[in-house]
Amino acid sequence: MRTEIATLGEFGLIKRLMGSVGDDAAVIGTGKNLLLLSTDMLLEGVNFDLTYFPMQHLGYKVVTVGVSDILAMNGTAGQVTLSLGISAKLSVEDLEEFYTGARKACEELGVEIVGGDTTASVTGFAVCISVLGSVAKSKITRRSGARQNDLICITRDLGAAYLGLHLLEREKRALAEVENPQPRFSGYEYLLERQLRPRARKDVIDALAAENIVPTSMIDISDGLASDLLQICHASGCGARIYLDRLPIARETYALAEELHIDPVVAALNGGDDHELLFTVPLGMQEKVTRLGVGIEIIGHITAESTGAALVTPDGAEVAIKAQGFNLE
Amino acid sequence: MRTEIATLGEFGLIKRLMGSVGDDAAVIGTGKNLLLLSTDMLLEGVNFDLTYFPMQHLGYKVVTVGVSDILAMNGTAGQVTLSLGISAKLSVEDLEEFYTGARKACEELGVEIVGGDTTASVTGFAVCISVLGSVAKSKITRRSGARQNDLICITRDLGAAYLGLHLLEREKRALAEVENPQPRFSGYEYLLERQLRPRARKDVIDALAAENIVPTSMIDISDGLASDLLQICHASGCGARIYLDRLPIARETYALAEELHIDPVVAALNGGDDHELLFTVPLGMQEKVTRLGVGIEIIGHITAESTGAALVTPDGAEVAIKAQGFNLE
Repeated sequence: MRTEIATLGEFGLIKRLMGSVGDDAAVIGTGKNLLLLSTDMLLEGVNFDLTYFPMQHLGYKVVTVGVSDILAMNGTAGQVTLSLGISAKLSVEDLEEFYTGARKACEELGVEIVGGDTTASVTGFAVCISVLGSVAKSKITRRSGARQNDLICITRDLGAAYLGLHLLEREKRALAEVENPQPRFSGYEYLLERQLRPRARKDVIDALAAENIVPTSMIDISDGLASDLLQICHASGCGARIYLDRLPIARETYALAEELHIDPVVAALNGGDDHELLFTVPLGMQEKVTRLGVGIEIIGHITAESTGAALVTPDGAEVAIKAQGFNLE
Repeated sequence: MRTEIATLGEFGLIKRLMGSVGDDAAVIGTGKNLLLLSTDMLLEGVNFDLTYFPMQHLGYKVVTVGVSDILAMNGTAGQVTLSLGISAKLSVEDLEEFYTGARKACEELGVEIVGGDTTASVTGFAVCISVLGSVAKSKITRRSGARQNDLICITRDLGAAYLGLHLLEREKRALAEVENPQPRFSGYEYLLERQLRPRARKDVIDALAAENIVPTSMIDISDGLASDLLQICHASGCGARIYLDRLPIARETYALAEELHIDPVVAALNGGDDHELLFTVPLGMQEKVTRLGVGIEIIGHITAESTGAALVTPDGAEVAIKAQGFNLE
């Protein structure tokens, strides 16, 4: 008997193996203060391409990816371990660059690299980050707490990291056979930064805490808004309506999307890697949340489970939101 | 500037990147109760070969490898996360087998799988395990606590896992072009078990605790006795003498070593993967330790740093113990 993993999808697979999909980080303990533990694996050729991903940025991004999971529980990240699978093509200097980037992100986020493991890799560079954090029981935010009429909020703009990836891939193809290649990124620096150097939104979590706002549910947008919103709907037993004209999409994202004949809304919904936070707050918090000054946008609201999740276009039409499959490339 | 990683070795590399090599697990906190966090990465083609490593055993072994690091700090393992890089050749059933083995080890060791991550892999199967544990500050055992005249103890026998690997490799070569292969493992089941299903020595840690014995230093033997003893010497600023005729080597290990023309002492010193514990206790503990009934052998004693680390042969000759390099295959 052989069941292909593609038939289950990533979440189906996790559910089958683990019993449930869970939150962005595992919750440990039962007292007033809970521990949070998250882990992420990034593999060369799947999650990053070293032909255009500078090692220093990769180190920075890995920490962003790991710490974002703790932030998405409304928690504080404390310690990080990094396990590396090292291929022979990498030099000591490459790895020092990687650590320089990782340390920079750790400094900015107030976390410490406490340990790790190295192993040889016969294939590509492999990185696994685990992050230990903590959160007061009264503040913990899971995917399952969204309630009808809650406002759906996201931080900053969507789709830029995805377009940044397309830009890098295009330049890689264009320059594959050119000597001394000079990539043309002018005007799109923002998209590159969003792909190569995404920032974990500790500023948002700090701002919420300063105003004593505890979201009812939260998730790190790593797989794309559509997929991650469905995670909240599924875990919370609810539906959702998000409004197309409310989706924050940067000017540069629109511009490159047009140039590459990509629908910017599709990029915003399904392009992953944004590492922004998607969360819900009670309806009465509207003003309080938008006044925080950390770029929070309200894009819709939570509805009854029976209504499903849909994107509402400016003319009032509803387009059902569907998850994308798990792509075993 | 390009420095090859091989010129530094694994420990040199870690020292350069991290500032120091550290213990088997990172220690977090400063109170009476400390948290322990360890991480290990295992990659197909380097750490295991799926042509002969059953998925269920691999799941079991990964948990052994991870939990051993916590035990080596004299700690109690509590929670585990598993990150998997999944290649398209694996089926859902393969991964279920892997989890069945991992859960079995977790049950035996009293730990819980709390989370994880899955990503596609274009190369081979990649596994990263992180383990969270705890230990009382008064009981924590590091690599750095060995003192002159301490006894050097190890649990169970050495070199068997390494010979088990050789046996599997031999059968793989022998059967590569045979239809319906029937591997000949008769008489060597013990070696296979040591390679395919090593057990984390929670029984030893429990037995030490029951008698209120706190080792002065400890390490998990994963890289081989020689390399791991040197880690203790280096961290503790001491030398060591271990006695060749005290090294516990199983009958099956001797038998296969002879058949394969491998020196069984070299296998015991440098063959890794044993996942037994190497620790030191004060001289006065000799009787107490050997009476515990968990297979602890005293193989030597700690000496002054200036004397270095050496293996003493039955005729009294001393052979300096040297570390093996980091092999980027």
